[in-house]
Amino acid sequence: MSKFENVTVVKAANIYYDGKVTSRVVEFANGDIKTLGIMMPGEYHFGTEKKEIMEILAGDLEILLPGEDIWRKITGGDSFEVPANSGFDIKIKTVVDYCCSYLG
Amino acid sequence: MSKFENVTVVKAANIYYDGKVTSRVVEFANGDIKTLGIMMPGEYHFGTEKKEIMEILAGDLEILLPGEDIWRKITGGDSFEVPANSGFDIKIKTVVDYCCSYLG
Repeated sequence: MSKFENVTVVKAANIYYDGKVTSRVVEFANGDIKTLGIMMPGEYHFGTEKKEIMEILAGDLEILLPGEDIWRKITGGDSFEVPANSGFDIKIKTVVDYCCSYLG
Repeated sequence: MSKFENVTVVKAANIYYDGKVTSRVVEFANGDIKTLGIMMPGEYHFGTEKKEIMEILAGDLEILLPGEDIWRKITGGDSFEVPANSGFDIKIKTVVDYCCSYLG
């Protein structure tokens, strides 16, 4: 079972889309920031400030990345990257558990 | 902003009720265990093994504790305790962000 050790967790959740998307911030000793989150079935749009690597721990979704016109199917075990200062549309098909890393 | 420092976080979420209730385990250096979770509107039942202290960080709910026959209204900032080896029924009225401590 994968764990993050020696980290700081912000107690309060980030809540988006009436709670259908929620996450909690995990801070690492080296300054890295990740969020661990849940997305319920639905369609959402998120903007990015930093480059993001989204690791899908469980669930099924489709992602429309910036500059692309084809929705990619993503499932548990897959990852995708989103450039900084952009955004993405996402269709959640089954409950998604994810880990998002913010880079740069 | 309240944070838990020097903790270990289990990466994968616990997912209940088709994702309407989710939580992540936070392990403390002294062996304490807490979960940080989200409950979407709905009605749920949970059993307990250890005594639990549920701190409601945000949201509104009603709780029926073991041995009681009146639903208590609980809101963000409130806490309630549930005895070990029992269970509780809970009606979530608005998205609830919670921290559960397991004792004993």
